[in-house]
Amino acid sequence: MKVKGVNLGNWLVLEKWMHPALFEGTTAEDEYWLPRQLDRKVYEARIKLHRSEYITERDFLTIRSWGLDSVRIPVPYFIFGDREPFIGCIEELDKAFGWAETYGLTILIDLHTAPGGQNGSDNGGICGVCKWASQPEEVEFVLSVLERLARRYGNRKGMWGIEVINEPMLEKMWNKMEIQKRYPPVDLKMAEGSRGISREFLRDFYLKAYDRLRKYLPKEKYVVIHDGFEIDIWKDFMQEERYENVVLDTHQYLMMGEMEGCEQTIDGYLSYIKEKFEKPVEEMQQYFPVICGEWCLFNSLVCGHDTQGGKSVLNGVEGVKQEVFSPEQKREIYQAVAKAQLSAWNKGAGYYYWSYKLLVDTVNSKGWIGWDSWDLGRCVAFDWFPLEK
Amino acid sequence: MKVKGVNLGNWLVLEKWMHPALFEGTTAEDEYWLPRQLDRKVYEARIKLHRSEYITERDFLTIRSWGLDSVRIPVPYFIFGDREPFIGCIEELDKAFGWAETYGLTILIDLHTAPGGQNGSDNGGICGVCKWASQPEEVEFVLSVLERLARRYGNRKGMWGIEVINEPMLEKMWNKMEIQKRYPPVDLKMAEGSRGISREFLRDFYLKAYDRLRKYLPKEKYVVIHDGFEIDIWKDFMQEERYENVVLDTHQYLMMGEMEGCEQTIDGYLSYIKEKFEKPVEEMQQYFPVICGEWCLFNSLVCGHDTQGGKSVLNGVEGVKQEVFSPEQKREIYQAVAKAQLSAWNKGAGYYYWSYKLLVDTVNSKGWIGWDSWDLGRCVAFDWFPLEK
Repeated sequence: MKVKGVNLGNWLVLEKWMHPALFEGTTAEDEYWLPRQLDRKVYEARIKLHRSEYITERDFLTIRSWGLDSVRIPVPYFIFGDREPFIGCIEELDKAFGWAETYGLTILIDLHTAPGGQNGSDNGGICGVCKWASQPEEVEFVLSVLERLARRYGNRKGMWGIEVINEPMLEKMWNKMEIQKRYPPVDLKMAEGSRGISREFLRDFYLKAYDRLRKYLPKEKYVVIHDGFEIDIWKDFMQEERYENVVLDTHQYLMMGEMEGCEQTIDGYLSYIKEKFEKPVEEMQQYFPVICGEWCLFNSLVCGHDTQGGKSVLNGVEGVKQEVFSPEQKREIYQAVAKAQLSAWNKGAGYYYWSYKLLVDTVNSKGWIGWDSWDLGRCVAFDWFPLEK
Repeated sequence: MKVKGVNLGNWLVLEKWMHPALFEGTTAEDEYWLPRQLDRKVYEARIKLHRSEYITERDFLTIRSWGLDSVRIPVPYFIFGDREPFIGCIEELDKAFGWAETYGLTILIDLHTAPGGQNGSDNGGICGVCKWASQPEEVEFVLSVLERLARRYGNRKGMWGIEVINEPMLEKMWNKMEIQKRYPPVDLKMAEGSRGISREFLRDFYLKAYDRLRKYLPKEKYVVIHDGFEIDIWKDFMQEERYENVVLDTHQYLMMGEMEGCEQTIDGYLSYIKEKFEKPVEEMQQYFPVICGEWCLFNSLVCGHDTQGGKSVLNGVEGVKQEVFSPEQKREIYQAVAKAQLSAWNKGAGYYYWSYKLLVDTVNSKGWIGWDSWDLGRCVAFDWFPLEK
């Protein structure tokens, strides 16, 4: 099994940096605070129109025309519309299955957020809050969402699998990333008690989720577990015969490597990819099919300055004012890191690029030079990303 | 001079059939009635989010990667924000110039609507109303909009030209199309006195518009006049030396040919294109550079039923429930009509496809089979449209 896919990020789970206009007129930095700051009617109008425009039939066709075979769709815990003030989006996922099946794509449903927060980052839905794992009723709620997703789509031809929770932040990464400094919580009282998730909790949750999903999800569909940013701790996990088609998802970004000292040159990136991406994937592939569910071509070299792990103008970090490299030089750098990473994921079970599309404007707004590489559509148009049709 | 371009339809001037979600919860069929039916906040939220998502930097890059060199941008008469209750969109056009110039595209600004209506169709902004030409103050208003556009963008590198008014409906076509039956007016009193525009008025308007534009628009930029659906009546017009770089725009759709009896077969389309598209363009090219500013691959053959001139499910016309042709057969038909039409426009000064993108859902909503051919993005992804990179 080898999957070649792309994430439909910022469609059903919002990230402000990918489309700032959604957050206009508010100080909200995440999806939790957006409906709490906007007039109800305005929130509804924005969110519904966004969902109807951002990803459509046209995009599924386009993705297929690039030779990819799957999409990973981040969905929020409120997808079924049972968590006020949020508005559900199950009809959008219904449509996505229709489009995927028409154009020969499969779908990995990725539960991207959890009530109370599973990682404290903006993309987890609430900045600086990570308390989901300590709230048994919310853990149960997440299990019920997974079960409902499996029941609704389990037997669909377009179903590739379900990822039980995206990027749960284990203690090690929670401390290393200094999450609450990077993503300050708005409500300190609400954030109180936030901490990294324990390995014990996560293992237990994955086992429970597997059983709940398998009630409705046929054995040939994948149950995907995220490595919690520690790829090598899962060797003794779910190796028993009763666990079938469990996929290990690891997310690898060059910007994270840069924080660990990866040299910001082509050679630096290539050796880092070999050592830190390819080798661990190859090793873990002995235990699980391993996918890289999020990665991209973004790097500080092309940005022209050290982004300190992908800090953007939205974090108050100024970007360069002019391109440092010519279009040809940029293409050379991006093609090199693309080829090396594709080779690494090929040692595993495949990949999903992050992301299909983002609306960062590198021309009319300052500080975004280099950020277009997060957008696979632009990578294809610029010929940065080698398509294998 | 040969231009290869595409229209950015439904971005700054709305057409309900291209994106029904914008009109959800209303009975409005056109842009005039939309803000009059929606809560002000909802209207503003929808329209602003739509403008920020529908066309972005990413699309300009994509269009360039297809080997095209220009975009025609329909704009409304209220672009400068001085016609309540509409919301202006000049900032969006500012951004478009930035994107176009960055990626090596030019822009044809196309004034697509006029207050009081210049053609009575939905895309003219108000169904069934065609009274602009009889209201001198509104004619002057339109001239002032053109002048302001020329002043703002005249010297921009990305400026290709300005089209003074889109599809003014001359009397002949007004009667033939039975516009008020096809696009019934909502307010009969407001529609009273609507009629086709006279040739005399239109000639006079074009002369005035030329002079007003040339105050700010350098001679090397194009002033574009639409033929009013009578391509052959302009041979004695603006032939004097003082009129420089005046381009004649003609819109040719196969669905209109079908209404005139064009046989709905590949051979029928090819001979119609040769006789009714290519020959007149070639003839008029002796008098003006002639562009086909709107055309597409859409035809009733692929739809599987006679659309009676492009009447859609939104006009209450039921489409077929299943594809009539295989993907290979569809490709054969579309490639044939694409090639023939490109050859016709090549006898003139080039073309703009209608349109870059539309959100018609052929999978999850009934009746839209065949309508995806209006969308150049899908034509490219399906390999229906031959790119010359």
